[in-house]
Amino acid sequence: MNNPSSLTLHPSSLLLALDFGGTKLTAAVLSVDRQLKQPAWLAHKRIFTPAGTDARYELETMIALGHELLAGRPVTAVGVSFGGPVDHASGTVRLSHHVPGWHNFPLQQRLEAEFGVPVRVDNDANTAALGEWRFGAGRGVNSLLYITVSTGVGGGWILGGQSWRGHEGMAGEIGHTVVDPNGPMCLCGKRGCVERLASGPYMAQDYRAQVQGHGLATGKAVAEAAANGDVIARSILQRSAWALGVGIGNAANFINPQLFVLGGGVTKAGPLWWDEVRRAAHETAMPEVHFTIIPAQFADDAPLWGAVALVEGVQQ
Amino acid sequence: MNNPSSLTLHPSSLLLALDFGGTKLTAAVLSVDRQLKQPAWLAHKRIFTPAGTDARYELETMIALGHELLAGRPVTAVGVSFGGPVDHASGTVRLSHHVPGWHNFPLQQRLEAEFGVPVRVDNDANTAALGEWRFGAGRGVNSLLYITVSTGVGGGWILGGQSWRGHEGMAGEIGHTVVDPNGPMCLCGKRGCVERLASGPYMAQDYRAQVQGHGLATGKAVAEAAANGDVIARSILQRSAWALGVGIGNAANFINPQLFVLGGGVTKAGPLWWDEVRRAAHETAMPEVHFTIIPAQFADDAPLWGAVALVEGVQQ
Repeated sequence: MNNPSSLTLHPSSLLLALDFGGTKLTAAVLSVDRQLKQPAWLAHKRIFTPAGTDARYELETMIALGHELLAGRPVTAVGVSFGGPVDHASGTVRLSHHVPGWHNFPLQQRLEAEFGVPVRVDNDANTAALGEWRFGAGRGVNSLLYITVSTGVGGGWILGGQSWRGHEGMAGEIGHTVVDPNGPMCLCGKRGCVERLASGPYMAQDYRAQVQGHGLATGKAVAEAAANGDVIARSILQRSAWALGVGIGNAANFINPQLFVLGGGVTKAGPLWWDEVRRAAHETAMPEVHFTIIPAQFADDAPLWGAVALVEGVQQ
Repeated sequence: MNNPSSLTLHPSSLLLALDFGGTKLTAAVLSVDRQLKQPAWLAHKRIFTPAGTDARYELETMIALGHELLAGRPVTAVGVSFGGPVDHASGTVRLSHHVPGWHNFPLQQRLEAEFGVPVRVDNDANTAALGEWRFGAGRGVNSLLYITVSTGVGGGWILGGQSWRGHEGMAGEIGHTVVDPNGPMCLCGKRGCVERLASGPYMAQDYRAQVQGHGLATGKAVAEAAANGDVIARSILQRSAWALGVGIGNAANFINPQLFVLGGGVTKAGPLWWDEVRRAAHETAMPEVHFTIIPAQFADDAPLWGAVALVEGVQQ
């Protein structure tokens, strides 16, 4: 397939990428021939799911979306990102924290029956890490931790040029590592885990607790107030960044990766936040442990690009 | 070499394992034929180095020890454990914290010239992890963190059935991950890192600070006093175990390994210590993250067994 015209002559080698998010379904198709250089979607479509959606609705909608984008053209493989715990080896969804009906659902098997080609499934933290590593901000490094800081704090590893999932697929849970055992209580039952201090909703909650009657509804609002000089917002934002930085420094001491790639809404908080994340991370890491902390390249599409990377080497 | 008699007929396939410890030099030889089943040393010798030793003395002593144990028989490869930072790829020692003269020393190159066979070098945390995984308490698992809790706290990873060293060879530094940002100050300049709370000398120091004139000189003495009902010793020992447990729980959330293998003098502290390590580790880890914490099988010889594992597949 060195001849670019083969794309036109045989428009057959398409990959289908599917992303089952918490509140949205995204599908895209990519030409296999073009993926290694300047990858770009041939087609891309996102649907926001209604409140009260279930697994059956999501699956049927996603399958319809896939067929619509393929438009009758043959597909080589289907890569899938799922917003919840997945057994990657079997492609079975363990559960969704957002949508009922996904418990122990054989997603890979169901989609292989539907599309008649190999399917690979992984959770969204791992696919986002893989997407940023293969096509985004992490290209060319041997090891990275991708971290999403949003309504929750999660992560995915690339170690030695491949996904590291852990023995139960649970690796990357920086959000529930403890950085302050005397800190505030998290829903998970522990005090001072990274998510309790660094995530957007908890920042907003902590602001409301301090400024009664003048609540800010979101982490974004806290970040804006901090940028505008609100002292309380500033201290909450700084503590969020400090907690994430200590978590990153600990991860660096444990694993010594080259790179940390940060995505998610809270990373839009501006230089106050980024400076403190970097300061706390390098202060926590040993002097001999070096790394770089950079923003993600993709926003919502990181898991979708990872879904492509899951199947780019798969042959029918 | 399926015929065991080949061992007698050709007593030539020997591996030499060398361990440059902080205060001792150990060499051993092993038959390649026997290593896969019930491995045992054919010869083993340990020398304690005098105070004021230097790199030249250690190297010459170790080379003499190797030749003595080989006794003129040919060797296939030499595996080396070094008690300090090493560049594994080149086999260069970065430095020793204990012995002068090792700075940027090309140990692999020097030993290859001496013995005329392939040499592999790694630091003692990695070789101990490898030794326990290949021949000791961690046999058969896919992933583990080996942790030594002694005068310091260090560690080495096996991930996916091989050593994970990190991009600078610095992975495994659980001792300098932070578990209590309001804790006591460590020599490393941070507060509340695992080593500051969990290592033997710091436990003894904390005891002396609380019981003036009735100091206990070592972590072992603190553990014995705790077992005999000394309330202050008990609380110091418990905090040591708690700190290590939080560090282990954080490691579990980050990497989700199957197993933690604990070696070093402090692990002899008894059930008070072990129970608290396990409790704090499982409390810190997410409920979906499972793992086992067990004692190391080898004491001083773990790095030496790892040195064997470094070269068992190496062909001349």
